[in-house]
Amino acid sequence: MEKRVKKIFNNLQKHIDAIIIKNSSEPFVDTNFFYVTGLEQGLFEGSSAVLFPDGRIDLLVSELESESAKKANANVMVYKKSNDFYELLKQSLGSSKKIGLNFGSILFLDYLRLQKNLPNKDFSDASSGFVKTRVIKDEDELKKIREAAKIADIVMEKIPEIMRDGIHEYELAAEINYLLQKNGADKPAFDTISSFGKNSAEPHYSHGAARIAKGGFVLCDFGACFKRYNSDTTRTFVFGSANEKQKKMYKTVLDAQKVGFEKIKAGIEAHVVHDEVDAFIASSEFRGHFIHSTGHSLGLSVHDGGVGFNSDDKIILKENMVLTVEPGVYIPGFGGVRIEDDILVKNDGIDILTKSSRELIEI
Amino acid sequence: MEKRVKKIFNNLQKHIDAIIIKNSSEPFVDTNFFYVTGLEQGLFEGSSAVLFPDGRIDLLVSELESESAKKANANVMVYKKSNDFYELLKQSLGSSKKIGLNFGSILFLDYLRLQKNLPNKDFSDASSGFVKTRVIKDEDELKKIREAAKIADIVMEKIPEIMRDGIHEYELAAEINYLLQKNGADKPAFDTISSFGKNSAEPHYSHGAARIAKGGFVLCDFGACFKRYNSDTTRTFVFGSANEKQKKMYKTVLDAQKVGFEKIKAGIEAHVVHDEVDAFIASSEFRGHFIHSTGHSLGLSVHDGGVGFNSDDKIILKENMVLTVEPGVYIPGFGGVRIEDDILVKNDGIDILTKSSRELIEI
Repeated sequence: MEKRVKKIFNNLQKHIDAIIIKNSSEPFVDTNFFYVTGLEQGLFEGSSAVLFPDGRIDLLVSELESESAKKANANVMVYKKSNDFYELLKQSLGSSKKIGLNFGSILFLDYLRLQKNLPNKDFSDASSGFVKTRVIKDEDELKKIREAAKIADIVMEKIPEIMRDGIHEYELAAEINYLLQKNGADKPAFDTISSFGKNSAEPHYSHGAARIAKGGFVLCDFGACFKRYNSDTTRTFVFGSANEKQKKMYKTVLDAQKVGFEKIKAGIEAHVVHDEVDAFIASSEFRGHFIHSTGHSLGLSVHDGGVGFNSDDKIILKENMVLTVEPGVYIPGFGGVRIEDDILVKNDGIDILTKSSRELIEI
Repeated sequence: MEKRVKKIFNNLQKHIDAIIIKNSSEPFVDTNFFYVTGLEQGLFEGSSAVLFPDGRIDLLVSELESESAKKANANVMVYKKSNDFYELLKQSLGSSKKIGLNFGSILFLDYLRLQKNLPNKDFSDASSGFVKTRVIKDEDELKKIREAAKIADIVMEKIPEIMRDGIHEYELAAEINYLLQKNGADKPAFDTISSFGKNSAEPHYSHGAARIAKGGFVLCDFGACFKRYNSDTTRTFVFGSANEKQKKMYKTVLDAQKVGFEKIKAGIEAHVVHDEVDAFIASSEFRGHFIHSTGHSLGLSVHDGGVGFNSDDKIILKENMVLTVEPGVYIPGFGGVRIEDDILVKNDGIDILTKSSRELIEI
């Protein structure tokens, strides 16, 4: 992953001698660690990667991870006790003086410890180098994201078969997660959402003990994590026949998503996509019921950073960015509809990576 | 959760007017947020909880989480744009001057933002209050951990049935995760490990494409996450008949675990448990092949902090601490054996929470 490391340094606006990526314990592990090493297995709690402008990587890992670390194209340095860690780090850094850190993914405590143990180094934020590099996906990344999208599609298409009278939300989630893994996902990309009826009005509700009721919404929002890369897709079904209000909600969201799709291409400012989608819903009878952004970038993290479809984001879209497009309408006490797909930005438009049917399905 | 908040302030060695818990995006969400709110549903990215010495909680959440937040016994304050967040925070803090933060679970970037937006406040580390409180589990927590342990046991006992000729590691992981959820887990506690043959020599290998081979080890390390609380258990099987070396490895690890079990009770320093287990393995022919600590505390996080069975930890064990006991022997290129259980510290010994058979099972 020498190429990625070089790009990160090139994308920094300043001179940096070396960058330290410092993992803490789960869940405070930095995905940048996996971006630069390409390691597909292992936890790497407490581990560090030290990056140099020529693309070299020193990997500082405990004995526990030494076997797994060998799979990276890097110089592996093993510490036996946590006290030895800073000695190895000093060795790795040598005379490097200006040290970059990811202020946005290092714990404050780890920063204080680095400062204490390396008193003669100048630390500064190197996040922008990572963010600018990671927001444009390379071939290897796109291959993994496409596979993650494909797996999620296969599972989404099976939802109508899985749904049955009396099923609980948590049972549907279990089936979804099982199918994700059986179809090649390493794990679900995030806590699978399977919310029924009025629970679907809570965008971040995952799943509980509710049983399906005739005529209720079935909102499924999940993704596959494949070799650390994620997909993220949502479909909303109706269990039984949809009533007029449900049909209207659905059509509004589906049309809003199309508005988004049509706007996206390289050269557009990200917020424009959200503004148009938001304005479209605001002009419908569901004004005020779209309560989140239109989408987020996707990759090693489900919310991958760097660009997003929200009202504040003035970043100009570029080819090979990957984002979600996910408008929704939520009515507390009644239910919610969300339709979400993963798209790849192209110069002349988009490539939609998730492909399961977007029409309203009455199960 | 007023009681927990009061305890956190009581466990601080200094005067603090208020504590801010600040979540970032996934995975950088602070489990302390869930400890004080008791919220079982919702992501709460970007949300904050402000705690006061009298047990009061202000919850600052985006609209997206406002429905979910209402389930907490707290004063919910909803911000519409991220800019409004700091205005609400100032309102919540009022004249509070000395502000506690969790240096060990807040991102450096979030710290810098708080400092910038609240220039007149004195920030200091309040981690110790959380760590000291959380390390002793209360009744509600123990109930959830016991349930998480029970679910993991049910699944572990089914492994011999699931294993079949030609099964891949990832398929076994999918089956385990499915059964966890079918039996009531919200999700697996962490990436389920199902490693076959020589892969079992990598303690943090999760699962890959390897197929089972006759006579190889089958190492299964997983847990249930139930209402955000985790269990964590490991069993090592042999697929077919175990050879002499495998039997010896197994017996050494099992006996080492017993050494640990017998040592643990309230009043003992944590490192003593590891030292004894470590010395036991070092006195066997597998000297040098036990390459991690003997155990970690368990709760809202799988590695819950506060106490651990490792050579550095001088914390005195107290009643109602929950930890894992997990010796292992790893031989690169051959395979590894680990046996892991969750235990509750009592005044006169332990209560073993995970109860599946610890004898060597040849599948």
